[in-house]
Order: sequence, then structure tokens, then C-alpha cells
Amino acid sequence: MTDSPSWPSRVLIVGAGAIGAFYGAALQRQGAEVSIVCRSDYEAVRAAGYRIKSDPLGELLFRPVQTLQSAADYQGGPPDFLIVTVKVVDGVDRVALIRDAVGPATTIVLIENGIDIEPEIAEAFPQNEIVSAIAYIQVSRTGPGLVRHYAFGELTLGRYPSGLSARCRELGAMMEAGGVTIHLSEEVGTARWKKALWNAVLNPISALGGVFDTAQMFAAPAGEAMIRRAMQEVCAIAAASGHPLPPTLMDQFIDKTRNGPAYKTSMALDYENRRPMEVEAILGNAVRAGQRLGLAIPVLETLYGLLRMAEAKNRTTAKA
Amino acid sequence: MTDSPSWPSRVLIVGAGAIGAFYGAALQRQGAEVSIVCRSDYEAVRAAGYRIKSDPLGELLFRPVQTLQSAADYQGGPPDFLIVTVKVVDGVDRVALIRDAVGPATTIVLIENGIDIEPEIAEAFPQNEIVSAIAYIQVSRTGPGLVRHYAFGELTLGRYPSGLSARCRELGAMMEAGGVTIHLSEEVGTARWKKALWNAVLNPISALGGVFDTAQMFAAPAGEAMIRRAMQEVCAIAAASGHPLPPTLMDQFIDKTRNGPAYKTSMALDYENRRPMEVEAILGNAVRAGQRLGLAIPVLETLYGLLRMAEAKNRTTAKA
Repeated sequence: MTDSPSWPSRVLIVGAGAIGAFYGAALQRQGAEVSIVCRSDYEAVRAAGYRIKSDPLGELLFRPVQTLQSAADYQGGPPDFLIVTVKVVDGVDRVALIRDAVGPATTIVLIENGIDIEPEIAEAFPQNEIVSAIAYIQVSRTGPGLVRHYAFGELTLGRYPSGLSARCRELGAMMEAGGVTIHLSEEVGTARWKKALWNAVLNPISALGGVFDTAQMFAAPAGEAMIRRAMQEVCAIAAASGHPLPPTLMDQFIDKTRNGPAYKTSMALDYENRRPMEVEAILGNAVRAGQRLGLAIPVLETLYGLLRMAEAKNRTTAKA
Repeated sequence: MTDSPSWPSRVLIVGAGAIGAFYGAALQRQGAEVSIVCRSDYEAVRAAGYRIKSDPLGELLFRPVQTLQSAADYQGGPPDFLIVTVKVVDGVDRVALIRDAVGPATTIVLIENGIDIEPEIAEAFPQNEIVSAIAYIQVSRTGPGLVRHYAFGELTLGRYPSGLSARCRELGAMMEAGGVTIHLSEEVGTARWKKALWNAVLNPISALGGVFDTAQMFAAPAGEAMIRRAMQEVCAIAAASGHPLPPTLMDQFIDKTRNGPAYKTSMALDYENRRPMEVEAILGNAVRAGQRLGLAIPVLETLYGLLRMAEAKNRTTAKA
């Protein structure tokens, strides 16, 4: 892609954890004017920006133009792109978090996990274009303002609910210029189901199995059989939802995960640290889609039932 | 029952945790000569016996005639009854634990959880009568030599693999004289499946759900639906194994559990304290039976797969 905007795009990232910091750094490197809203790390980031230690890319520094505690504090008029990277969990009102910075021409970009996570935003901002983006990346926060990037980083994006647009291409071009591999997708819904094939299965199993990393999951007796069975159920829901997945995708994911570096999933880490897990976005919405379609999905339903128990337990024993 | 032996029976209990202490106390109260083999609490029990604080029965004291560290130390010739109350877990060789005290006329009594837990003992001691017993009891060890008895205590027993015998009746009469409600069963295999209907479902779910107690399990969203579904799978396996369960049993168990006092299952407590869980006896053997019979048991298989992961994880992070 060679298109590029004629002036520096103004980008506001809301919920700048590890994901937001990584893509914010890429956009700033390309020349965008990137600001962030962050909560827990506000003081550290305001003082020194983000320090991203990347295994593939070396050490990156990212100093946002504006470091804010609230979208209402954003100065200079509404951003061209408002990128949402907050976790989709119960009790976090994403609409309220972004409302004060959304202008009539702002494109809202969701770089978040899960299935059916767009309607809430689309309904609240019916005039705004929504770009839905799926990140394939291993990245985590290691301390205030400190981010570790282990591998990958590619981004699939498209207009919600489907199609592409000038803003999609513009964002894609900016990300590519910043070093991020981009896949533009006319069917971003299908792209979400592709990621769900991995996410809706490996995340819950890793948490429920006792906070296992990916290598341990495949080493466990019957681990792979259970993973395959759950993945087949996800494929069935995706196909019945109008998003048939390539028949080889399951084997690709399994081979890539088994042969890749061992790591803990985001849900396993959240569970271990008693943080809210993305139960509904990652698994619950998929289960409900399967139930609406009348499919037999006993493995996913069992994982979901257990996960809701674990989540409830987590909330009663949350770390301070 | 009014039969009673003409001289005090000699009873050796191997693995005298909370279960062994409770039933040992009952037998001694009746006049049997009860000795025990225990490991972790040896010093405390040798010094002061067991102190059993029972909600329904008050405080009981139980001083075994012989308190031993090994069955080989048992004096006075082989016992009439050797009662095994050790947990059925990987790495515990029950045959080795009892071999040195089993004489030709010794009846081996298994008061243990699970399905298909008798063959290993029956094969090692083909000349000995095996009595299989299932305890419905809420009891736990609260400290060295200290036992807390919350509720219930009834015992279902019969000859393995089926039928009744003089020794079954004798043991039953002794237990009844000691205050224990006894059900003699000609089909102890069916009795085991009855208990498995509860055990194979509530134990795994309580552990995997984040160490939930029974009340929390039923309060969790979709908790009861998951419990019912898993129980239906157990019913199917039991029926196909020649042990059809009464159709009302599931509702009885669910009502009794939901309306009874909240408590943590043995497996949840083991998981929480990083002790080995009875994964195979309680769930694995049932799953294998269902798989041999070609039944669709996806919920139980999912629970089993997760439980094996959790067990493996437990072993790598065992408490000292």
C-alpha cells in the first residue's frame, strides 16, 4: 500500500496497555500524532513514556504527544482515529470511556479480542465508522510503562460489519509504514471467528487447567484431543453464522502453537493474577451464537460454565 | 441385624485419615479390637489417639489398640478385617500398603471412593474375600489426630463383585452396633455408580470452578444445568454398564445438595491444598467405561481432560 495521509493523523488510544503501546509506537514511528488515555500507568508513562522491549525488534521508546487520564482531557479537537484497546470485561463501560473524545469524523478502531464486540460501540455511535481489528501478537505489560513484546504483531482489519473503506486503507498504510504487517479484510467478521478458533479454546483451557502454558497444554494427556474437539465446535458455530473457516486452519493453529514458544494465554495470566477475564467476549458470545443456532456444543458449554464459576470466584478473591 | 461375632473381631485400618478414624471409633465402641496404620499423624495418634468432634454425635475419643506406621508391624496374627481407607491416587500402591498384614482368612474391606477400584486388590489377593463399601459422610481431618465430622455417616456395603456373605453381615452388624447406619447391597457395583453420580460430577466441577463449595456451584450461572448434563452422562454409562440408576436419583441428589449445608468437596479441598486428587477413581474410570461402551460423554471427557491438566499442574507446585 502506498496511500498515505497528507497531514499527520491525530490518533488517540484509549486503554493503552501492552497492545495500545505497541501499536501506538508503530503509528508514531510513521509520523502520526499519537496520544493515549491510560489509567494504572499514568504517572509512569507521563514521566517517561513507554519502554517496549521487543524480542524481534529490539528496544522501542514511545512518548505519546498527550498522556491523559480521561478521554475528556484530549486537546486540539476530536482525533481522526480513536483506537480502543481496553479489555472487554463486565464492569468496563467502553462507550463511557471514549464518548468525550469521539467527534463526527472520528473513526473508531477496536483492537480487541472476541466475537460480537462491535455492536455495543456501533449502537452508541451510529454515525461513526467502525474499524474492527484483530491482533496476532504476544505482548504483555511487565511493569509501569514497561512492555515486553515476544513475537508476531500482525493486524487484520476491516470495516464493521463488512467491507473496506478509505479509512481502513489509511490506517493500514500508517501501520505498515510503522512496521506492522497488515491484512485488510472485506469480511472482518470471518477474521474474528478465525482468531476465536484459537482464543475461545486455548484461553479457557489454559486458565481452567491450572494456569497452563501452551506447551503444558499439549503435553497433558488428552490435551490435544480436547483442544481439537472444542475447536471443531467453534468451526461449526462460525460456519452456521455465515463465516465458514478454512478446513486447514485448525491444524495450522495447532501446529503453530505446539511448535512455537511456550507461553501463557492472556486469560491464564488474568486468572492467575485475579484480574477480570474476557469470558463473554472470548467464549460467552461464541457459545450464545451456537445456542441461538441450535448447535450441539457441549465442550464449549462446559468450558463456559466452569469459566463463569472461576470468574465469580476470582471476583470474590480479587487481589488488592 | 442381630448377628454378632462370638469374640471381639480384630480389625486393622490402613490409611486411617478422617474416614478411618470415624469408622474405627464406631467399631471400637461396639467392642472390636481396632488398630490402625497411619503415616502423617502417627506421633499424635500414638500419644493421644483421635479426637473426633462430631456435629451430630458430640465429641468422640478413639484410642487404637495398636498404632502403627506399617502393616508389617501389626502384632498378634492377621486381622479378621483389614479396612482400607487410603485415597486411590496415582503413586499410592495400595497392595503394597496392606500385603504384610493380609492373612488367608482376612476379609479386605475397601471404604474408598470411586468406580472400578476393586480389581487391583482382588487380583493381588485372589483367595481373600473383598467387601466393597461406600461411605456417605462429611468428615475431614482438621489437624494431627483431629477429625471433624459434619454430617451423615451411613455405609453401603456388599461383597465384591456382587452378592452378600457372612462376613458382610458380620461387619454390618458391628458397624450398626457402633452407631453407623448400614445398607447391605447385593449389587455393590450399582451402589458405587450411585455415589459416582454425585462424585464424578460435583467433585471435578467444584475443583475446576475455582474451588467452589456446593452452594456456590448451584448459585453460579448455568451451574445447575452443567451439573445435570454431566449427571445424565454418568447415568448413561451406569446403565450401559449393567447398573441402571433410579430415574429419580439425580433430582434427589441435586435437591439434597442444594438444600444441605454448603461445603467443599474432597477434590476441591485436595486441589486447594495441592494434594493428589482422586482423578482416576472418581472420574477417569467412569470416563473409560463410557468410552469402552462407545457412549457420547463430551461433558465428562472435558472435565476429565481439564482435571488431568490441573492434577499435573498440582504435582509440579505441590506444597512442602
